[in-house]
Amino acid sequence: VPFQTAQVEKINMTIEAGKNHYSVYIGHHLWDSLLFQSEVKSKKIFIVTDEMVEKFYLKKFIDSLKDKYEINYFVLPPGESFKTVLMVEKIATRLLELNYSRDSTLVAFGGGVVGDLAGFLASIYKRGLSYVQIPTTLVAQTTAAVGGKTGVNHALLKNAMGTFYHPQCVIMDTAFLMSLDDRQFSNGLSEVIGYGLILDADFFYWLKSIIFDNTAREIQNLKKIVFHCCRLKKSIVEEDEQDNGRRAILNFGHTFGHAIESLTHYQSFLHGEAVAIGMRIALTLSQLLGWISVEEVQLVIDVLLKANLPVQLPQSITVNDLMTAIQKDKKNNENEQRFILLKSIGEAIISSRIPLELVRNAIESSYSFR
Amino acid sequence: VPFQTAQVEKINMTIEAGKNHYSVYIGHHLWDSLLFQSEVKSKKIFIVTDEMVEKFYLKKFIDSLKDKYEINYFVLPPGESFKTVLMVEKIATRLLELNYSRDSTLVAFGGGVVGDLAGFLASIYKRGLSYVQIPTTLVAQTTAAVGGKTGVNHALLKNAMGTFYHPQCVIMDTAFLMSLDDRQFSNGLSEVIGYGLILDADFFYWLKSIIFDNTAREIQNLKKIVFHCCRLKKSIVEEDEQDNGRRAILNFGHTFGHAIESLTHYQSFLHGEAVAIGMRIALTLSQLLGWISVEEVQLVIDVLLKANLPVQLPQSITVNDLMTAIQKDKKNNENEQRFILLKSIGEAIISSRIPLELVRNAIESSYSFR
Repeated sequence: VPFQTAQVEKINMTIEAGKNHYSVYIGHHLWDSLLFQSEVKSKKIFIVTDEMVEKFYLKKFIDSLKDKYEINYFVLPPGESFKTVLMVEKIATRLLELNYSRDSTLVAFGGGVVGDLAGFLASIYKRGLSYVQIPTTLVAQTTAAVGGKTGVNHALLKNAMGTFYHPQCVIMDTAFLMSLDDRQFSNGLSEVIGYGLILDADFFYWLKSIIFDNTAREIQNLKKIVFHCCRLKKSIVEEDEQDNGRRAILNFGHTFGHAIESLTHYQSFLHGEAVAIGMRIALTLSQLLGWISVEEVQLVIDVLLKANLPVQLPQSITVNDLMTAIQKDKKNNENEQRFILLKSIGEAIISSRIPLELVRNAIESSYSFR
Repeated sequence: VPFQTAQVEKINMTIEAGKNHYSVYIGHHLWDSLLFQSEVKSKKIFIVTDEMVEKFYLKKFIDSLKDKYEINYFVLPPGESFKTVLMVEKIATRLLELNYSRDSTLVAFGGGVVGDLAGFLASIYKRGLSYVQIPTTLVAQTTAAVGGKTGVNHALLKNAMGTFYHPQCVIMDTAFLMSLDDRQFSNGLSEVIGYGLILDADFFYWLKSIIFDNTAREIQNLKKIVFHCCRLKKSIVEEDEQDNGRRAILNFGHTFGHAIESLTHYQSFLHGEAVAIGMRIALTLSQLLGWISVEEVQLVIDVLLKANLPVQLPQSITVNDLMTAIQKDKKNNENEQRFILLKSIGEAIISSRIPLELVRNAIESSYSFR
């Protein structure tokens, strides 16, 4: 999927994952209640959302649909620390009290936490009902909303419990990104930079240029970012829906990132921030293996720093803590630990024969800026 | 699937549900560690079991496999009241602590509660790992272990959260049934009688004869029961894996039964006992609709009573409580409540246009013996 520099106003994609075919609508100011109505034939919808969306968009959203549907909603507190099985049960209680049935529709209207949690709830409530993804953050639009992975966290492992369960459709309006604060925007850039590193050197160097120019938040660039990431995600998901092979490369930086999130109780770092530190460790490990140069590692670190992302492991996490936590990674099998590393900028590799001593060295080198 | 009176020693079935194909091995004293090894190629297995199995079989089972696998286990307390999402998370914690990975295997070794809960856990732990069903009770062998429905209870609804997730194989040894106490055995007979009522009049009248003869627990009859119920279940599951149509007839008596279970906090009745009362209400409703006769209702009540099953609603449950609780039934859609009723003995019908006044009448008549 080559990176397109030409400007496009909107795209409709169909994701074909196994027997699931569904539409992803992407554009700026794309939201339209008629589009929603063309997809959702239920009488009752239930919105799972977050405080950011409640503040800016929820009332207008409900007003645009309240003549057509019976609507109830639940507002999640902010942050990964509430993405738990207990919260899922709490929302299920409301659905049961309000007699939501299998042919009702859930709407995940918010960031990645909302999408993961509402998707998981949809996959298990009465053994499954339809849900629609309306992602509102850069992380959610570029990674979480497309692909059908759902999940909740466990104290010992990020997304420890979840399902593969595709939405009925995804409605992605880049106008929602205008209300993100700087930290949330940087949080999303982390995953976006990851796409460039694993799949597309041209995209990475273009990102570098707009990040150093401070033009990443300009509408034209935002749209290019979301469009391209979704195209890349589509190609990977269609190749390997159930994450048995190549889809794992999307996990670049996540083995360490997830471990950092669970070790800090989902409270110190946003997801993209933890992944940024994780990518730095994975880059260092790739360099220790002789695949990329010291200069390339430093270039990526500089881009991450310029994007206001952390690149240093906090002193509160010891090397041993991290070595233990990554053993629980979902990619590992019974025989070996697996790592996503870079062969070069723009090319990832899944590797299971990495000497743990080198992993330890890479972690030890990641407490500093360079 | 005609009822076979000829004696068969064992059967191997293949369940073909969508892209899932798996073997069900059924026989008396069928258990064989080599059979297990031929199916399970993991290094690590984790057994979820219950106190009955722990008392009689667990040590021997582990001894027969411990040279081939790393084995850990978890013993559930008895009863439906522990089939909760909290218990699932508790077992997931142990799996994470012990570094179980996606290519490890769970073993559900016990009754229906064990199978439902372990199957649910298998479907969501790290987004899914394989599991093997080794059902040890009559309920589990005749209904729960085949078909891929998993779930946990909610205070407001039985099996409120769950998945469709098929086991890798089912190993069903009728010798386990010899250690059931009388109440557990009757609990299973309830579902077995249900199969006859909805699908097979010949089977029902044969069951009536062995129940009145007190020969239902004889090995030859037990084997016939398990074999036939599994054949019936296979035919229904293959026709409608995701429970969108005809599979709902297996829910005869369960709309009311599940409501009775949740209203009594999963503590007064075993599942089959609540279903027996539920079948009695559904029979009465079928009779009020003019489909079956008063004599047929009484005949079934007499068979249930002879099988030591309850047929009366407890006074602690009011008509209004039950009318409210059945609105949450998983079969209902947004527009209407659905009921599984009998057109005649051996023929079920799914009906969504039943006047609620008649339902109320059927409930009101079900506080007495006749």
